[in-house]
Amino acid sequence: MLIQEYFKSRGMLLEKALRNYLQYSNDYPKKLHEAMYYSVFSGGKRLRPILFFATYEMLIGRKNINRLERLLPAACALEMIHTASLIHDDLPSIDDSSERRGQPSCHEKFGAATAILAGDALITKAMEVLTDIKNNKIALQCVMILTRAMSTRGMIGGQVVDIISAKKKVNVNTLRYIHMRKTGALLQAATEMACSFGNAEENLTITLNNYALNLGLAYQIVDDILDEVGSFEVLGKEPGEDIRNSKSTYPALIGLEKSKKTAEKMLRDSHNLVKNMQNNDVLLEFVAMIKERLP
Amino acid sequence: MLIQEYFKSRGMLLEKALRNYLQYSNDYPKKLHEAMYYSVFSGGKRLRPILFFATYEMLIGRKNINRLERLLPAACALEMIHTASLIHDDLPSIDDSSERRGQPSCHEKFGAATAILAGDALITKAMEVLTDIKNNKIALQCVMILTRAMSTRGMIGGQVVDIISAKKKVNVNTLRYIHMRKTGALLQAATEMACSFGNAEENLTITLNNYALNLGLAYQIVDDILDEVGSFEVLGKEPGEDIRNSKSTYPALIGLEKSKKTAEKMLRDSHNLVKNMQNNDVLLEFVAMIKERLP
Repeated sequence: MLIQEYFKSRGMLLEKALRNYLQYSNDYPKKLHEAMYYSVFSGGKRLRPILFFATYEMLIGRKNINRLERLLPAACALEMIHTASLIHDDLPSIDDSSERRGQPSCHEKFGAATAILAGDALITKAMEVLTDIKNNKIALQCVMILTRAMSTRGMIGGQVVDIISAKKKVNVNTLRYIHMRKTGALLQAATEMACSFGNAEENLTITLNNYALNLGLAYQIVDDILDEVGSFEVLGKEPGEDIRNSKSTYPALIGLEKSKKTAEKMLRDSHNLVKNMQNNDVLLEFVAMIKERLP
Repeated sequence: MLIQEYFKSRGMLLEKALRNYLQYSNDYPKKLHEAMYYSVFSGGKRLRPILFFATYEMLIGRKNINRLERLLPAACALEMIHTASLIHDDLPSIDDSSERRGQPSCHEKFGAATAILAGDALITKAMEVLTDIKNNKIALQCVMILTRAMSTRGMIGGQVVDIISAKKKVNVNTLRYIHMRKTGALLQAATEMACSFGNAEENLTITLNNYALNLGLAYQIVDDILDEVGSFEVLGKEPGEDIRNSKSTYPALIGLEKSKKTAEKMLRDSHNLVKNMQNNDVLLEFVAMIKERLP
């Protein structure tokens, strides 16, 4: 199967499941449902759910879209949590971003109050849909994995350190800490949930989590680099945002060349961790996709 | 056992469990953990967890504090969710309350960004601690009950309708809708989780949920009344807030006398629903406590 086809078919499967969970039509209060729907269907690339599917299909040793049915609640939960974090990060009192993927951000369109509550509602909904997982043990493992990824040791902690660190010169370790949690944590949750569904052994789970972590770190460094030298087209948003927000970046701390080398090293590590596994094509493609963004 | 002793002993049990979950000392990022801790330990009356304990102890037919050990994760989750909702409700872009229980509100002390993320972290932590419940089926039932209570059909929906309705003259039905969700939903979750742990039959669960719902509605009407005619001491905050926020209240819509009558009717209903049950003394005391607040 062509990689493009893989992304397209799995993406469509997810869209349908997300629509099922978030369709609202006449649900009251309409504005809240509208805000949730708006943000979830605003053109996200669905990388986390697709990484989750791909890891699971690698583990079970075949690509079979029908087998993904039982993964859909967890896949939707991943995307809802990701969206909730973007809504809250964009808020005026946090990153103050009025645009997201070329569209008005949630608070810009619905007001800050609704945006805060839409984020809360998406976190809540994510946890609720996990109870649709038929196997109780796996359902609870997913609650555990996703709450850890979101927690003060994960995304939320990373976001707070990011805020505290703005307008300060931080060191590379702090920056790595922020990236690991803001981006790495949820990617890791994707591979770890796949391991839970695929009944993978602990060693394999650790390897795949490391793959995801390196992927996330590399992604963030590339993002930092593109924010400095990229264009609107490649980045999907106006470059220079980090400088405007006085945020530390890899290029600012260690220079452009060394940043590129660091990203390349992480992508190599990521690649090496899975290169000897069977059916690893989609996972390798994730590495290649990030590498292609490097200028 | 004296009622005061009951509240004190169960309250202390909960405090200890909450401290276990939220102690942070040197956890990084410290500011975030500090904000969570500050809000959870700011003098709340712990009504929801104590109602949860009392309902369970009524169901199992004896008051035995050792039997409550297995309920502690769910009890803490209840209180964390309640606290998270207060933190977010107080935010400048929502109710803009700079005080809560006579202390600076979370954003007033830690800034809006940290307050938003502390609320998110408490919702997340609540879900995480539910995975400590030993019985997988009950753990998932609690996830289901609490997410429904928080959802767009519950607390969050109620809060949005409350915001939309401000500065508008709404009718009593809308006000009832808001109260049912903002206050009733989480009290209902308390009795429903108790029924899950106590393995209660469906009919009994419905009766106890109705008891909790009437209790919540009465509580809110009494709060509305006290906001108009009460003092700082009885209310725990400056009265007149609803008028300042242009919020509709029962007294404003149907007058003070009719509001009192409505609250009394709901308290009577609440009382009647449990009056023939054994070991109902604490549940009856909840009704009496609200009645005593009526001026």
